[in-house]
Amino acid sequence: MNIEPKVLKGFRDFLPEEARKRQYVLETLKKVFESYGFEPLETPALEYEEILSGKYGTEGDKLMYRFTDNGDRKVALRYDQTVPLARVIAQYQNELPMPFKRYQIQNVWRAENTQKGRYREFLQVDADFVGVYSPLADAEIIAITIESLKKLGFVKFKILVNDRTLFSNLPKSGITDKEIPIFVRAIDKLKKIGKEKVLEELVENGISLERASYILQTIEYEKPTPRINEIMTALELMGIDKNLVEFLPTLARGLDYYTGLIFEVEVDGYQVGSIAGGGRYDNLIGMFAGRDIPAVGFAFGFDRLIEAMETLNLFPSELYTTKVLVTFANSELQEKALKIANDVRAKGINTEVYPEDAILEKQLKYADKKQIPYVVIVNDKGLALKDMLNRTQEELTIEQILKKLQ
Amino acid sequence: MNIEPKVLKGFRDFLPEEARKRQYVLETLKKVFESYGFEPLETPALEYEEILSGKYGTEGDKLMYRFTDNGDRKVALRYDQTVPLARVIAQYQNELPMPFKRYQIQNVWRAENTQKGRYREFLQVDADFVGVYSPLADAEIIAITIESLKKLGFVKFKILVNDRTLFSNLPKSGITDKEIPIFVRAIDKLKKIGKEKVLEELVENGISLERASYILQTIEYEKPTPRINEIMTALELMGIDKNLVEFLPTLARGLDYYTGLIFEVEVDGYQVGSIAGGGRYDNLIGMFAGRDIPAVGFAFGFDRLIEAMETLNLFPSELYTTKVLVTFANSELQEKALKIANDVRAKGINTEVYPEDAILEKQLKYADKKQIPYVVIVNDKGLALKDMLNRTQEELTIEQILKKLQ
Repeated sequence: MNIEPKVLKGFRDFLPEEARKRQYVLETLKKVFESYGFEPLETPALEYEEILSGKYGTEGDKLMYRFTDNGDRKVALRYDQTVPLARVIAQYQNELPMPFKRYQIQNVWRAENTQKGRYREFLQVDADFVGVYSPLADAEIIAITIESLKKLGFVKFKILVNDRTLFSNLPKSGITDKEIPIFVRAIDKLKKIGKEKVLEELVENGISLERASYILQTIEYEKPTPRINEIMTALELMGIDKNLVEFLPTLARGLDYYTGLIFEVEVDGYQVGSIAGGGRYDNLIGMFAGRDIPAVGFAFGFDRLIEAMETLNLFPSELYTTKVLVTFANSELQEKALKIANDVRAKGINTEVYPEDAILEKQLKYADKKQIPYVVIVNDKGLALKDMLNRTQEELTIEQILKKLQ
Repeated sequence: MNIEPKVLKGFRDFLPEEARKRQYVLETLKKVFESYGFEPLETPALEYEEILSGKYGTEGDKLMYRFTDNGDRKVALRYDQTVPLARVIAQYQNELPMPFKRYQIQNVWRAENTQKGRYREFLQVDADFVGVYSPLADAEIIAITIESLKKLGFVKFKILVNDRTLFSNLPKSGITDKEIPIFVRAIDKLKKIGKEKVLEELVENGISLERASYILQTIEYEKPTPRINEIMTALELMGIDKNLVEFLPTLARGLDYYTGLIFEVEVDGYQVGSIAGGGRYDNLIGMFAGRDIPAVGFAFGFDRLIEAMETLNLFPSELYTTKVLVTFANSELQEKALKIANDVRAKGINTEVYPEDAILEKQLKYADKKQIPYVVIVNDKGLALKDMLNRTQEELTIEQILKKLQ
C-alpha cells in the first residue's frame, strides 16, 4: 500500500502525552461542574441540516460541514453545542428537570481558514443554566468559572463583567437601535485595537467622530446596573472573592444573542485572548420550543485553556499514566516480575511489566518515552528501584519498594 | 420557526440520566486500562477517504459516511479505531514508545440498517498492545478484560479463548486454504444457529456433508495449542483466576484478520451476544508502515455492555450528580441557603441551591426528577433534612446535617 499516513488540515491526533493533559483538564472541569449540580448531556455529531442551518449567520452557514447521506437526507456536523441544546429542550420538555443545568463536552466542526491558527475539529466545553431568570443563576455560572480556574491552578486572573442592557439603554445619549450592534462590534475590539481604531471603525460605519467619541465616553463612565449589583451580592453570599470580579462597561462580546450579563476571563501572563466567557441569552434557547426560555451559560475555549496552562506551567509534573515499570533481566525472572507488578498494582499504583526480556537500556528508554518515573529492576541479584528523574538506583526488598512508592 | 426538533434515525441524544451511566462505565474502564499502563489516544472524526476506503471490505465501503468537503477533498467519518491506529503507528513511528499500549474511546459512524436495532453513531472502546509478539501481551489483554468486568460488577462470566492457527493447521484433515474462511464464518455461528444449520451452510458452500461433519468434529476435539497454554500460564502468574478462562476450539470470531489468540466474553444472564472480544492480529497494524507489526487487542461493545449492566442491575443505585438540594422558603432565607450549600459543597459533596423561591412541592419534584437523594429545607423555623428515598424528614442543626451526609 502506498497511501501517505497523514491527517486533514485543521484536524489533529492527540498522542498519549497530549491526550493525558486533555483528560486531566476535563476531569477537573467535570468535577467542578458536577459539584454545583450540572449534569452531562451528549447530542449526535450529525443533525438534520435544517436544525442547524440559518442559526449561525452567513458565516456559520458557509463554514458548516454539510452533505447528503446514503438515504438522501441533508445532514450537517455539529457546529456548536447551543443549538443542539435548544433542540433537546424542545424535544424532551416533559422529561427534563426544569431548571435544567447541563454541561456538554464534545467536538464541533467548522471549515475555518486554518492559516489563522484555527482548527476544523475542536472540543467545546459548555455549561448552561436553563429556565431561570434569577441572578443566582448568573452568579452560579460565574462561580463555576472561577472555581474551575482555581482548581486548574490559575491564581492571577479576573472575571470582567458587564450588562448588555447598558448598550440598549444608550438611546438617551443619542444612539439609535440600529446603531447598537455597530457599537457592540466596535467596542468588542477595544482591548485588541485601541480606542483610536474603534472610533475609526465607528466613523466608517457612518457615525460622526463627535457622536462616536461622546457615546464611547458615556459608556466608559457607566456605573454597574442594578442587575450586576444583584449578581455581585449573590457571588459574595456564595463565598466568592469579590476582587476576582471586575465591572468593565466597555466589555462587549461580539455575539448578538446576549441579553444581560456578559463576562470574560482575563489571565495574567496569557494575552492571546480570553480563555472563557459567557453571559445571559434569554431569547435563544426557546427557538425550537416556540417561546422564550431564559438561560445563562459559559464556555471554555479548550485549546486556549490548554495553551494558557502550558504557558503558565500549570500542568502537574507527574502527569504520567504508568508510575512503575517492572523489568526482568531474563525469562526465568518473568514469574517474579509479574508477581511484583501484581503486588504494586494491588496498591492502586499504575504498573506495567516490560513484556519481553530485552537489554535494560532499551527498557529504560521505553520508560523515558512514556515518562514513567520509577523502574523496578528484577535481576539475579535481587531487586532494585530506579528513580528515572534523578537517575538514582537502590537495592531494596519488595516491602521497601512498596513503602517507597506509596 | 417551524422545524420539528428530532434526531436522525440511528442517532441518539444521551440525557443526563443515561449520560451519567455512560460516564460511570467509561471512568471505571479507563482506570483499569491505565492501571496496566495503557494510555489514551484520540484521532480525528474525519480522515482522508483513501485512508479508510478498502480497509473494511465491500460492506464497510458501503456503510461508510463519505463526502466531499468545502476544499474538494474526499473525506470519510471514522468507521473504526483500528485503521486510524495503524495510520498513527506509521505516521509517528519515531515519537511513539514501542511497545505501544493505547486505549481509544471515540464514536464511530456506520450507515447501518437501523431496523436491526443497530445505531449509526456509537461509541467504541478499544485497548490494543502493539509491537510485541510475547504471550505476556495476549495474557495482559485478557487480564484487563477480566479486571474491567469485575470492576463493573460482573460476577458470573467466562472468557472463551481459542487459537486461529487451529483452523489454518487443519489441512491434514482434508481442508484446503480456500475453505478456511468458509469454515471460520460458519463455525462463528455455532452458538447462535446450532450445529445442524452450520453444517447446512457448509454444504451450501460446496463442502460435502460427510467432510463437513468430520472436520467440525475434528475441531470440536482439538486440544489447546502450545500458544494458548503459554497464555494460560502467564494469566496464572498474573494472579488471574483460571476458572474464568475456558478453551473453546469451536470459537471462531467472524473477522478475517485474526492470526492467533481469539476470545469472547460470555455473561451469565445476558444472552443477546458477546459484550467484548478480541484477539491477535499480526498483519494489520503495519498496513501503512509497510511491514508486519504484531498486535493484540480487544474492544467492548459499549451499547451491549450498558444493556448487560441494566439487565443484571449492575449500576450503583446512587448514580446521581447532585447529592444535596438546598431549598429556601422565601427570599430572606436565600443568604442562609447559599451559606449552607457552600458548607456542604466544601465537604466534597455535590450540592445545589434551588435558584428561586418556589413552593416546596415544586422543588421536591425537581429533586426527584434529578434523582437527588437529600434535600435541605431552610425555612423560618430552622433546618430540616429530607431523605427523598424514604420520604422521611428530620429537624437538624447544620452540624448534624453535615455529619449525616458524609
